[in-house]
Amino acid sequence: MTITREDCVARDAADPLAPFRERFALPDGVIYLDGNSLGALPRTTAARVAQVVEEEWGRHLITSWNRHDWIDLPHRIGDKLGRLIGATPGEAIVADSTSVNLYKMLSGALALRPERRVILSEVGNFPTDLYIAEGLIEQLGRGHELRTVTADEVPDALGDDVAVAMLTHVNYRTGRMYDMAATTALAHRHGALMLWDLAHSAGAVPVDLGAANADLAVGCGYKYLNGGPGAPAFLYIAQRLQDSFRQPLSGWLGHAVPFAFDPHYRPAEGIRRAMVGTPPVISLAALEVGIDLMLEADMAALRTKSLALGDLFIALAEQECGPFGFEMVSPRDRAMRGSQVSLVHAQGYAIMQALIARGVIGDFRAPDILRFGLTPLYLGYAEIWDAVRILKDVMTTGAWDHPDFHRRAAVT
Amino acid sequence: MTITREDCVARDAADPLAPFRERFALPDGVIYLDGNSLGALPRTTAARVAQVVEEEWGRHLITSWNRHDWIDLPHRIGDKLGRLIGATPGEAIVADSTSVNLYKMLSGALALRPERRVILSEVGNFPTDLYIAEGLIEQLGRGHELRTVTADEVPDALGDDVAVAMLTHVNYRTGRMYDMAATTALAHRHGALMLWDLAHSAGAVPVDLGAANADLAVGCGYKYLNGGPGAPAFLYIAQRLQDSFRQPLSGWLGHAVPFAFDPHYRPAEGIRRAMVGTPPVISLAALEVGIDLMLEADMAALRTKSLALGDLFIALAEQECGPFGFEMVSPRDRAMRGSQVSLVHAQGYAIMQALIARGVIGDFRAPDILRFGLTPLYLGYAEIWDAVRILKDVMTTGAWDHPDFHRRAAVT
Repeated sequence: MTITREDCVARDAADPLAPFRERFALPDGVIYLDGNSLGALPRTTAARVAQVVEEEWGRHLITSWNRHDWIDLPHRIGDKLGRLIGATPGEAIVADSTSVNLYKMLSGALALRPERRVILSEVGNFPTDLYIAEGLIEQLGRGHELRTVTADEVPDALGDDVAVAMLTHVNYRTGRMYDMAATTALAHRHGALMLWDLAHSAGAVPVDLGAANADLAVGCGYKYLNGGPGAPAFLYIAQRLQDSFRQPLSGWLGHAVPFAFDPHYRPAEGIRRAMVGTPPVISLAALEVGIDLMLEADMAALRTKSLALGDLFIALAEQECGPFGFEMVSPRDRAMRGSQVSLVHAQGYAIMQALIARGVIGDFRAPDILRFGLTPLYLGYAEIWDAVRILKDVMTTGAWDHPDFHRRAAVT
Repeated sequence: MTITREDCVARDAADPLAPFRERFALPDGVIYLDGNSLGALPRTTAARVAQVVEEEWGRHLITSWNRHDWIDLPHRIGDKLGRLIGATPGEAIVADSTSVNLYKMLSGALALRPERRVILSEVGNFPTDLYIAEGLIEQLGRGHELRTVTADEVPDALGDDVAVAMLTHVNYRTGRMYDMAATTALAHRHGALMLWDLAHSAGAVPVDLGAANADLAVGCGYKYLNGGPGAPAFLYIAQRLQDSFRQPLSGWLGHAVPFAFDPHYRPAEGIRRAMVGTPPVISLAALEVGIDLMLEADMAALRTKSLALGDLFIALAEQECGPFGFEMVSPRDRAMRGSQVSLVHAQGYAIMQALIARGVIGDFRAPDILRFGLTPLYLGYAEIWDAVRILKDVMTTGAWDHPDFHRRAAVT
């Protein structure tokens, strides 16, 4: 049966999450399907940031480290974030970038498995994960190997030589999602540590690191958590590992007594030993607003709507854009799909530029993927309908085939 | 001859830098002598941050990476900062924290001197510098040694086994400053690389890394650069070393072609290979305001006033507070003094709390140091006079000896 725009409007009217839309400052005339790359701006973020800048920094100056408890921000926000990923208080902190946190977690993992030499990961993992592993391996010079296989090959590749399996829970290009509990159990069966990259999971899909018995995790603050461009990232170390975990970026804020100015490093108890330098207060304040907002919503309801938006997008793409040669690369199987839908098309780059020019903002990932992020907190069903109709129009009219939309020479 | 408050008021009236004071949003009733720990808020920062949040993030969303050139912020701001430290364009970037940058620079330095095993540093260097070296040495497990000596012993300790000398140009506690050119030349004579920590130098004293032929440097954005709490830090790699420099935090933004999503890491040309993850846009915007403001001032005039403020503080401390048992630990020799004055007193902690309660904000560094940061961009001579008189009053009346001001038991 044909899906109509009226159907979608009706679903919006019945959507229990619809009121969250008004909590974001989205521009008119835009259908924003790129919240998987940079989340939208919560309406209260600007005021909170202004308060931190003008009052806490400007008026209270250095005393704010105590007065406004700046020093504890990475932990306070980490504990809040923990509720979205199945971490107990003291298992997660917000700090540094995802790449830096990956390095800390990988290096710490190898130190916990000194007799093993393999980091297992996925072909097509987000590049920084692989690059960080390569950098660490080259630096250590001890013959470690980065073994990359397809997602389907992971079970067979998980041998007893694997020190740590580093997998991204939801693939950034395809949106394919691992079974976290099953994969973690498999890694453990082989004595490997399990490190999850939650960049496309936190705030996007239900995550329960504790229930999955995961060891380590990292993730990103500026995507589904709506923390702002370049927001601080997060990391997770399971409680049971914390006492034995050591990471090499042993900065002063990971010291047991930072303000004692001891001449020698002594790691803090618990998750604090994963801290490095001074926390980025203004950015942390913005991220906290995004996480607080996300915590107001029910994650099960978010997941239900996210999958419904995905199903709708897939059905509409077939209904409206069937003849145009798009290939669906996101899993149709809901259990394996994150909160995005990706299409492959040889002219993907130009098509995405034409969409953006029409106000439908998704993104393109080389060589040929059009990504559409589905953020149930601020997207509606009718927007999906409108987005697909604009895609259809771009294809029907050939609007994508315009010099403005073709790729310029790569800037290296 | 006795220095009077009128003398100081007259000096303020004749101060060519005095107009800069109005460019900062300093609270009434406060004499802020802690700009060496957290710089003051420039008046235009709040508006710039609001613009980034509301317009660039909120309205233009993901397109701002190109539209507002977010992707180039670390380089654009790094080049501006470079003018304050004697770097040519392409030698400095703004990224990560000082601690993370130290790790990158130290690791890269050891890789450039693979046959050497010693990191030379100073006893009493800022702890994170030493901790980061310890963490790297432990991680590498190749028998490296962190050799720490006093500043006076550095020349003798600089042997041919030293891979890298890592020194903080201006000591965080005493304000003692190295002769950068002479020390760098000495390091080079022994085949060592020279890594300068400019945390208490950038924006505080004239720095010319190029003229000194320095190899590597790191520094901090939230002190004299007035970039805000936890502002991004910076790093410097001399042009001549960049092609051979490798650092292990090989994140995607240090890749030659980040958006090609290559499966293997290939370092970018030049300073870009020192980038790791996604830049913290909001924090970078705040830092840029601070650096722009600093660039409006003449560094020679800043240095002249900074030294004059220091001489005045020292003279007044002797004139007004002679009997109270303070020991001056900052060099009286102007050539060896940074932009702070530090006093030692056994009751330093309580005295500083009493000063803060009276609106004179300096800070305390264990075990017994009272630090007074002298920021010529926004401090005046009469303020120094007032601060020392309040110190005298706190000592004369015994106001410091109050239960509120005594140290609480250590938290950890």
